[in-house]
Amino acid sequence: MATILVLGAGVMGTALAVPASDNGHRVLLAGTPLDTLPVTRMKAGEIHPKLDATLAETVTILADEELRPEHAETADLIVVGVSSPGVAWAADRLSGLLRSKKPVAFVTKGLDREGERIVTYAETLPPRIANMESFIGIGGPCIARELANRYPTSSIYASRDRAAADFAAGLMRTPYYRLAVGEDVTGVEACAALKNFFAIGVSAMQTRYPEGLRADGQSKNPTAAAFNQAAQEMALLCERIGGNRASAFDRAGIGDLHVTVGGGRNSRLGHGLGLGRTVADVMSGELGGETVEGIDTARMVGSLLRQIDDAATLLPLATAITNAIVEDGVFAFDFGRI
Amino acid sequence: MATILVLGAGVMGTALAVPASDNGHRVLLAGTPLDTLPVTRMKAGEIHPKLDATLAETVTILADEELRPEHAETADLIVVGVSSPGVAWAADRLSGLLRSKKPVAFVTKGLDREGERIVTYAETLPPRIANMESFIGIGGPCIARELANRYPTSSIYASRDRAAADFAAGLMRTPYYRLAVGEDVTGVEACAALKNFFAIGVSAMQTRYPEGLRADGQSKNPTAAAFNQAAQEMALLCERIGGNRASAFDRAGIGDLHVTVGGGRNSRLGHGLGLGRTVADVMSGELGGETVEGIDTARMVGSLLRQIDDAATLLPLATAITNAIVEDGVFAFDFGRI
Repeated sequence: MATILVLGAGVMGTALAVPASDNGHRVLLAGTPLDTLPVTRMKAGEIHPKLDATLAETVTILADEELRPEHAETADLIVVGVSSPGVAWAADRLSGLLRSKKPVAFVTKGLDREGERIVTYAETLPPRIANMESFIGIGGPCIARELANRYPTSSIYASRDRAAADFAAGLMRTPYYRLAVGEDVTGVEACAALKNFFAIGVSAMQTRYPEGLRADGQSKNPTAAAFNQAAQEMALLCERIGGNRASAFDRAGIGDLHVTVGGGRNSRLGHGLGLGRTVADVMSGELGGETVEGIDTARMVGSLLRQIDDAATLLPLATAITNAIVEDGVFAFDFGRI
Repeated sequence: MATILVLGAGVMGTALAVPASDNGHRVLLAGTPLDTLPVTRMKAGEIHPKLDATLAETVTILADEELRPEHAETADLIVVGVSSPGVAWAADRLSGLLRSKKPVAFVTKGLDREGERIVTYAETLPPRIANMESFIGIGGPCIARELANRYPTSSIYASRDRAAADFAAGLMRTPYYRLAVGEDVTGVEACAALKNFFAIGVSAMQTRYPEGLRADGQSKNPTAAAFNQAAQEMALLCERIGGNRASAFDRAGIGDLHVTVGGGRNSRLGHGLGLGRTVADVMSGELGGETVEGIDTARMVGSLLRQIDDAATLLPLATAITNAIVEDGVFAFDFGRI
């Protein structure tokens, strides 16, 4: 039995407590300052307000103010489950918590800057977090609510420290949570972020070309063409960010893109763009108050595209998504460019 | 202006007449002996019974008995649009028709045998068809009805004779029919066939793990995990058949798999298998009288798996699909194997 400290009691952090506790581990699930509601509820023995799954009794819920270095000291593995706007907070919090070397696995998805370069958290977080022994990136198609309800789910745990990735995956793997292990952490992190971004453009095809004869009203050829185009462009950008293009064609890339198209907030933004609406319109309407991670990623991709000669020709889908988001224009993807 | 002879007046052959005629070419659309109904209808100026699109006046409809070597002689390109059970007939018919060298492009999807080896039509058809100057394989996500209605559609034309593929794609490419050109014809042909097969297994996940909180009743993590697993196994089998694994991660592979999962006959068979029914049960029920191309491909894949050491470990999804189809058992895919 090991002890796993999960930082962040949002849906993903909480869902990860399920395989961890199913494996017989002691789990400390610590909320951020924004997790007051789920922490209060779960401490009272109720379910997480956004998950329909109960947690095992071996999961201890901690409010942020209760979490101390002593908790981190007992942990064999730390899992960070905050969303990308919380990653700076999480880095500071971990720096204050860790008094000895610990492996840390991140489900947080996003790109980051290092001077002019666009990089991943695998590059920017290790120097910022004292005593982080190894950085493990988690990618793959995982809707938190399905994982919490033990639907078969596949993911990859990647680290430059392969033994650390093996160790973390070994603690978390269950018959329903299927984990591959890899070393291309930059590629996994890049794809995990890029898939949110590309899902916006692929999902736009589900509303742009309606097909009245189908039950769901959607034509299929344009979406499949855009899905494939997204995969090719993700591979190119992944390589450009320093990852291996093969990661785009595996769990963290096409696998996660598959689950993200058609469901979730990035996809809902895409559905609006497909109908000719602007980002501002959709974000002040049905997505008011929500975090859409693909929007932040679009700003990073925009910087990256400016550094690539002939980006509009090589990366027409990324260019169209970026233009719509960064300039709040209409989404204008011309199939003539593929 | 060129002349394009399309052999086969099924939905795909007829749909291909649309971009061909939109490009200003003269099109001869010749039915097989099984196409009496659509030929009669279209000759009377009506629409194809399975397509909701009208053809241009520059498309000439021919019954099989009207098609003569003189027609083939006027053609700059021949496109074969028959389904896989008709490919032997088409090879014989072409051998009788061609009096001079002509390039021939095939949308027919299937695997074939050469002694003990499992190969593609790119290997078996050229020696059988006198005067076929070059074999061009067509792959990619293309629902015929959507192409016929000019929805954006992407495909690849591949040939060992790159100039022939360029020529054929140049005649057929339109602003809505987006064509890549490649040389890995074996890989494109292998993937075009394998995607029908794998779509059965991926689609099974859409019914096996229902999710009551979603509008479509489907969980998404298992399907995405199986989609990714299918892509990896398709790449391995593609290579084994003699193609390039990169083709599995492009239009003819993941692109076409994306469109095939969730729609069409292979997918409907998968939905039945996901519910624990047998192939015989589904094929004598809602798919009675239909051709499900993935079933024939499963027999070929079964032969191939017997030639691969440790196939059950390397190719667990292909093994599960093959077992269900060849032995008419239940579809038993264990996520513990990925």
